[in-house]
Amino acid sequence: MPRNQQILLDNRPQGEATAGNFRLAATDTPPLQDGQVLVRHHYLSLDPYMRGRMNDSKSYAASQPLGEVMIGGTVGEVAESRHPRFAVGDKVVGMGGWQEWSVVDGNAPGMLRKVDTTHVPLSHYLGAVGMPGVTAWYGLVKIIEPRAGETMVVSAASGAVGSAFGALAKARGCRVVGIAGGPDKCRYVTGELGFDACIDHREHGDLKAMSRALKDTCPDGIDGYFENVGGYILDAVLLRANAFARVAVCGMIAGYDGQPLPLQNPALILINRMKVQGFIVSEHMEVWPDALKELGGLVATGKLRPRESVALGLASAPEAFLGLLKGKNFGKQLVKLV
Amino acid sequence: MPRNQQILLDNRPQGEATAGNFRLAATDTPPLQDGQVLVRHHYLSLDPYMRGRMNDSKSYAASQPLGEVMIGGTVGEVAESRHPRFAVGDKVVGMGGWQEWSVVDGNAPGMLRKVDTTHVPLSHYLGAVGMPGVTAWYGLVKIIEPRAGETMVVSAASGAVGSAFGALAKARGCRVVGIAGGPDKCRYVTGELGFDACIDHREHGDLKAMSRALKDTCPDGIDGYFENVGGYILDAVLLRANAFARVAVCGMIAGYDGQPLPLQNPALILINRMKVQGFIVSEHMEVWPDALKELGGLVATGKLRPRESVALGLASAPEAFLGLLKGKNFGKQLVKLV
Repeated sequence: MPRNQQILLDNRPQGEATAGNFRLAATDTPPLQDGQVLVRHHYLSLDPYMRGRMNDSKSYAASQPLGEVMIGGTVGEVAESRHPRFAVGDKVVGMGGWQEWSVVDGNAPGMLRKVDTTHVPLSHYLGAVGMPGVTAWYGLVKIIEPRAGETMVVSAASGAVGSAFGALAKARGCRVVGIAGGPDKCRYVTGELGFDACIDHREHGDLKAMSRALKDTCPDGIDGYFENVGGYILDAVLLRANAFARVAVCGMIAGYDGQPLPLQNPALILINRMKVQGFIVSEHMEVWPDALKELGGLVATGKLRPRESVALGLASAPEAFLGLLKGKNFGKQLVKLV
Repeated sequence: MPRNQQILLDNRPQGEATAGNFRLAATDTPPLQDGQVLVRHHYLSLDPYMRGRMNDSKSYAASQPLGEVMIGGTVGEVAESRHPRFAVGDKVVGMGGWQEWSVVDGNAPGMLRKVDTTHVPLSHYLGAVGMPGVTAWYGLVKIIEPRAGETMVVSAASGAVGSAFGALAKARGCRVVGIAGGPDKCRYVTGELGFDACIDHREHGDLKAMSRALKDTCPDGIDGYFENVGGYILDAVLLRANAFARVAVCGMIAGYDGQPLPLQNPALILINRMKVQGFIVSEHMEVWPDALKELGGLVATGKLRPRESVALGLASAPEAFLGLLKGKNFGKQLVKLV
């Protein structure tokens, strides 16, 4: 059996996460038993939610146990199969974790799914046509419930979730305004992704400046906001929100290191009769088929052109992940393993 | 025509509202024209929302204009009618404002409604079987959507909205915990209103103490919270909220004077996958018939025994209103005019 390189969580972050929280290891993959499938990972997905798992505190998901392989989404190819539904060469998506190979129970529901790479590149099943895309879909369709002509705003707009959110909202006839860090990302958001406007948060680094920029780019106010980051941007959105505006809270990356992140004026939720709702997409598996179908169509027809940042080799995963938390990636952050 | 005493908004509060913001005036009621009804007010309703109207800032409702009669709900008796649907002696509820008499267009939809005082005292149509009761009903039924066995918490529990909320939640098989100010109110909340427990916020005046009290009284966590006050109580509720908890935001009385009222840890909305939603009951007139029917039944059968604080005479309205904002009332605050 092949030698399998892995990255384990070695110890928990004190404040900011560092490369020293991780440890490289190697084992032999065990021989397959009946019903099992051996998958060679082509790409590992890096996502902000993983930072939350590194903490020991109460959160929506169980903590990542110390000394075990970091969890994470993977796409790859079946290398060996003792399950009738999977054949060698099948392209599959699963939760293989930060390692080069995984042995998967082919019967466990939702653990391994065959995908079609005719019109959609394999890596996109970790991004636009995967968990991040469905996350955008759920927040927009099920929480924000947009109507044509409304104005939608999304933070981290050039990322995997934000770019999918933009395409989905444009398809519903909305004005879409992104928030991203730096002129390159903003150009991509308006130029390639087709957003109506993009605000560079580096140029608008406090509540007053962001509020003014939102006023300029959203002349009719804000009806829906997809929250990926937390902090002063949410405060600014509340100041520009229309009556009955909806906020889907998907991530508060700014608070992952444990620093307090107060909301300055929650009374605006009442004054604007807003709905602010948090969610985790993995708790809503029932929407995945519909969402993936729409997202696959947007990618296949070129209406959603997701960008990827690709790090090479498993050993590069920790640094790539730490960069993701600082917004150094451009689009979906992946690690290429093959 | 009778002489009509009125209270006008004379000037806007700078910070805390004071008696000097109001001015007493008197006019003759004009002669009736066709379609009009002259109502003699028996009771004037005093409600926290009126404080918001006194400000000039952006809010959900138009500001109360200076120099005009303060708006407010009233119940009374038809004294003269030139409208076929209203007869002298009819008991009616309307928005007559802070004055002794009003002339109402009987055709204007929703302006004047006849009520039956066989089983429900007239004054209750300003409280449990009126706007405050429907407010509780909307927040519970339409936003919180309680299930039997869940734990509900309401602040200002002895007040008009809180007491109705408790009875409605008990009728749905929930555990109900109130928060009120002082031992008398807490005794009434558990003894007469039938709440399962009541926390005295004067004994638990900061986040840590309130959080501990909520842990003690809500051993299974909090599934629904009806927010009447704002401030540290909401922070404490978020710390004790279960996954998928719902918060109906009806009032943030603590912030009416303009002081900042930040929410310490909005990330808990995500961590607990919560829904936090603000509303104003006057925007949901479609629920009033169902809500009033249930509330009238609860009062008629003694399952909801609302308490009233009654001030005597129109001139007492400003002081009674300022007391309401400080929680000096016990139950629904009324002004008796006849």
